[in-house]
Order: sequence, then C-alpha cells, then structure tokens
Amino acid sequence: MNTTFATILEIVGTLAFAISGIRLAAAKQFDWFGAYAVGLVTAIGGGTLRDVLLNATPFWMINGSYLTVTAIALIFVIIFKQYLVKLENTFFIFDTIGLALFVVVGVEKTLMFGFPFWVAIVMGTITGSVGSIIRDILINEEPLLFRKDIYALACVAGGIMFYLGEKMGFNSITNQSICGISVVAVRLLAVKFHWSLPALKDDTTNPIKD
Amino acid sequence: MNTTFATILEIVGTLAFAISGIRLAAAKQFDWFGAYAVGLVTAIGGGTLRDVLLNATPFWMINGSYLTVTAIALIFVIIFKQYLVKLENTFFIFDTIGLALFVVVGVEKTLMFGFPFWVAIVMGTITGSVGSIIRDILINEEPLLFRKDIYALACVAGGIMFYLGEKMGFNSITNQSICGISVVAVRLLAVKFHWSLPALKDDTTNPIKD
Amino acid sequence: MNTTFATILEIVGTLAFAISGIRLAAAKQFDWFGAYAVGLVTAIGGGTLRDVLLNATPFWMINGSYLTVTAIALIFVIIFKQYLVKLENTFFIFDTIGLALFVVVGVEKTLMFGFPFWVAIVMGTITGSVGSIIRDILINEEPLLFRKDIYALACVAGGIMFYLGEKMGFNSITNQSICGISVVAVRLLAVKFHWSLPALKDDTTNPIKD
Repeated sequence: MNTTFATILEIVGTLAFAISGIRLAAAKQFDWFGAYAVGLVTAIGGGTLRDVLLNATPFWMINGSYLTVTAIALIFVIIFKQYLVKLENTFFIFDTIGLALFVVVGVEKTLMFGFPFWVAIVMGTITGSVGSIIRDILINEEPLLFRKDIYALACVAGGIMFYLGEKMGFNSITNQSICGISVVAVRLLAVKFHWSLPALKDDTTNPIKD
Repeated sequence: MNTTFATILEIVGTLAFAISGIRLAAAKQFDWFGAYAVGLVTAIGGGTLRDVLLNATPFWMINGSYLTVTAIALIFVIIFKQYLVKLENTFFIFDTIGLALFVVVGVEKTLMFGFPFWVAIVMGTITGSVGSIIRDILINEEPLLFRKDIYALACVAGGIMFYLGEKMGFNSITNQSICGISVVAVRLLAVKFHWSLPALKDDTTNPIKD
Repeated sequence: MNTTFATILEIVGTLAFAISGIRLAAAKQFDWFGAYAVGLVTAIGGGTLRDVLLNATPFWMINGSYLTVTAIALIFVIIFKQYLVKLENTFFIFDTIGLALFVVVGVEKTLMFGFPFWVAIVMGTITGSVGSIIRDILINEEPLLFRKDIYALACVAGGIMFYLGEKMGFNSITNQSICGISVVAVRLLAVKFHWSLPALKDDTTNPIKD
C-alpha cells in the first residue's frame, strides 16, 4: 500500500475511533480528561493488546501521532458537538475505513512476527474490535459488539479474504486491498440489509459456574 | 502427568470454562459471536494474563485447539440449551477438574520460568480464576468470585500443597497430583459444607480515594 | 532519592492504594478474598500495565512485599473499619504521597528503558491512575477518575515538571523531587479550590459507532 495513502487512512481511522469513544464518554458526562482517555483507549486499545500478545513494543509508544490525533478529536467534539448528529453517515464511513485498515495492519504485523494465518485473523479481529470493547467496559456498559456481531465478523471475513488472496499467490498490496475492501463491504451490506446473527437465549436460572 | 491424560483433562476443563461463559452470555442475550467471544475469554483469559506477565507467548497462539474447543462448546449450548439445567452437576465436576488442571499448569509453567514459589502460587490462582473475572466484566456484572472466595482459595490451597510436596522431595508427577486433588477437594468440600469467608462490610459513606 | 526513604514512601503509598481498594470492595460486601484481590489490583495495577507495556517483568513478581503490604491493609481494615471515617484526611495525604511516588517511579523506569519523555509522562500517569480505574471496573462502577480529572492531570503535571527539570540540567534527585512535589501540590490545590475540568456533554441520542 502506498505509504502516504496508508498514513492518511490510519489518521482517518484513529480519528473516527477516538471520536466514537469521546462521544460515548460525553453521553456519560465524563470530563475532558476522561473523554480523552476513553477516546484514546478506543483508538489504540485493540492494537495495544495485539502488540502485547505478539510481544512487540506497542505501536503508539513509537509514534506520538495517535495521542495528538486523539487530542484533535477531543477539540473537534468540544467545538462541534451540536452538529455531530448530522454527520453520522460521515462518521460511519470513516469508522468503517478505520476498521478495515486496523484489520489489515493487525493481520500483516502478526504474519511478520511469524505466526500462522489463523493467529493473524484473530489478531486482525482483536485490532479492529477490542478498542470498542474496552471503551464499553470503561463507560460501564455491556459491550455493544456482543450484540452486533457483524462488526467483528467483518474483521474475521477480511482476515479470511487476506488468507485466500495469499493462497492464490496474489502480491501483498492486492491481499491488503482485498482484505480491507471485504471488511468495508461486509459491514456496509450488514447495516444496509440488517444482517445479524441470532441471539443466544438461555432461560436457565442457575448458570453453572456461579 | 501422562500426556494423553493431561490433554483430555485440558479439553474437558476448557470445554467447561467455555460453556460457563457462553451460558452467562446467553442469559444476557448476546449473539452467537458475542457468546463465542465470552466463552473463549473465560477459557483462555487466565492463562493469557499469566503468559503476558511471564513474558511468554500466550499458549493459545501456539495451539489452535482452544479456539476449536470453544466453537464446539458454542454449538453444544445452541443445540442442547433446553437440557443444560439437568446437567448442572456434570458441569460442576468438569469445571472443577478444569480448575484443578489450570492451577497445576499455571504453577508449573511459572516455576519453569525460574520464578520463586510464591509467584507460582499467584500465577496458579490467576490461571484458574481470572478467566471468570474477565467474563463477569464483559457481561457487566460484579465478579462473582469476589463473593465466593472458596473458588480462588482452592487455587491458593492447591499451589501451597504443590509447594509442600516439593519441600518434601516428592517427584513432579506426585506434586502435580497433590496440587490438583487439593483444588478439587477444597472446592467440593466448600460447596458441600457451605464454607465461605466472611464478607467485609464498611458502612463508611465516603470511601477515601474518591 | 535516599533508598530507605523511598522504600518507606513506597510502602505508605501501596498501603494507601490497597486500603482504598479494600474499602470500596467492602462497600460492595465482597468477602475477604475479594477485598484482598481488589486492594492488590488497586495498588499494583498501574505499575503492572506499565511494566507489560515496557516489556519488563512486573515489579511485584520480583519483590513480594506488595502482597504482604496488601495483606496488612486488609487486616487493618477488618480490625479498624469503624474508625476509618475519622482518618479520611490521613488517608488522603498517604494516598497523595503514594500517587506522587508512583508517578516518579513510572517516569524514571520508562526513561531507563530508553523511551522518549512523552512516553515517560504517559507511563507515569498510567502508573498512578490505572490501578484505581481497574478497581472501579472490578466493583462495576464507572471509573471515578473520568469525572475527577485533577487526579490524573496531577500525574501529567508531575511528569511535565520532571521533563522541565531535566531540560534545565538539574540532577536526578532534584527532578524526582520536583515531579513528586508537583503531583502533591496540584492535587492538594485542586481539592482545596475545587478545581475541575468541564464535563463534556453530548445530547446526541445516537452515538456513532453503535
């Protein structure tokens, strides 16, 4: 992938993830610092867990721009909060682009560390989705992700497409593109056609281990 | 320990832990993906934290069977959910076996990394109990473990028995067996005789740091 | 810093952090084990995350005194719980001293690992504040920190003062003192004059990413 283009996408994705965290923190009336912290964790949480599991130095400790982008996101939300509702669709697109890029980065970095492809798919999914899980834990809500599967499943689908591309002998840029486009496509289609996995109901009153 | 036998116990334990997570996720009406994620984290969360603290590659990144076993657990719960209540006792036994094995593995691996015994006992307890703490955080409940001490205390007891066995010069297999049997015994006795630690009450209205 | 003096401050800080965790656990009627676990995580959680991110062996795995101090904190709360309310001010001072020392340790250790100063400031803040965030997650409350910014901002201020001291060519002991005193000063002034950051309100009903 062209480096400048990838950097722009990464900033767009980080910005979208951070804004999502900051806005949910705002709904809980967190103060500026709390909102910044939740935004930052939403943006970098998934990649940080990935790097800890890979035993790599967390990416944001090497490049300060993630902290800066989150600060910009905070200022943006403070100034424009009245107008944000009208931008939902724009945010959704940015967020989906960010998700796609996060998955691509997660899959690639894991392969670079010599792990097999199934680990890379798990890591792509962790990179894309754990940030929003930690966000929901911090604001003390049940992770929405666990009721809205297609978000995480889009990550899994992207990872699998990356794998298939590699199996077919495509080059690296092609595989990255296939992966990213698959994430975007699955998510857009899922939202458009209201795809969702069934909920698992259990009427047992006394779950086992407790 | 005989490797085949240990592997069977490990699968049984992983299955029991995963089922416990999946059933609690079902009670919250998470979808299939959410239930799978909660089940997986319940099964591998403790060992993952242990491995991160030991600076080891997380065990499930080297061996894909944990992801597969969790998938089997999910399918099992989806198909048989009506009948699971009748199996409570079976689950309880499986879960206790799993707990015992997780503690044995946690203690051993920590010793193998050259840490002293008190660290190994802490790691055995983390391996056995942190999965269910993360599970409860994900479903947004107070960790039940913190009100049902004997679960974690059984891990501590097992670790101490391992230590005493080593002090007495027993061989490795004997110490593992003593440790595992102690975990099972303490937990069964605690449930049978309703052992529990006192709750700590504090009527202070204005706790210090907040 | 004089080693004996630093050790005394570290014990005081650990004790204060552990007591804060134990008391909040008591308010939720956790049992003794649960209270111990919450106290321990409050005291060592921030430093543990710092060490994992730095890829260092977590500090408490090398020195058992943190587990012992937490046990002393538990016994203290069990015996004296009726009288603790009257000690609020003492606790507050201890807690603030602990916070200051944790920030100093966090900044120094990060610099020792060769990271730039902005990473050290983040790590100082993580060392000082993440323990109480995990504490609040475990007792299933929204992290208070996110509404009481000055706590975390005091860490940031201390880190920045350390940086300025280094820029001015002061020696290590001076910088540590400047950092620690800044943390204490900002926190005391913030409490005395009710400083706080504005809360971020967002009346949007449909936050973006969910």
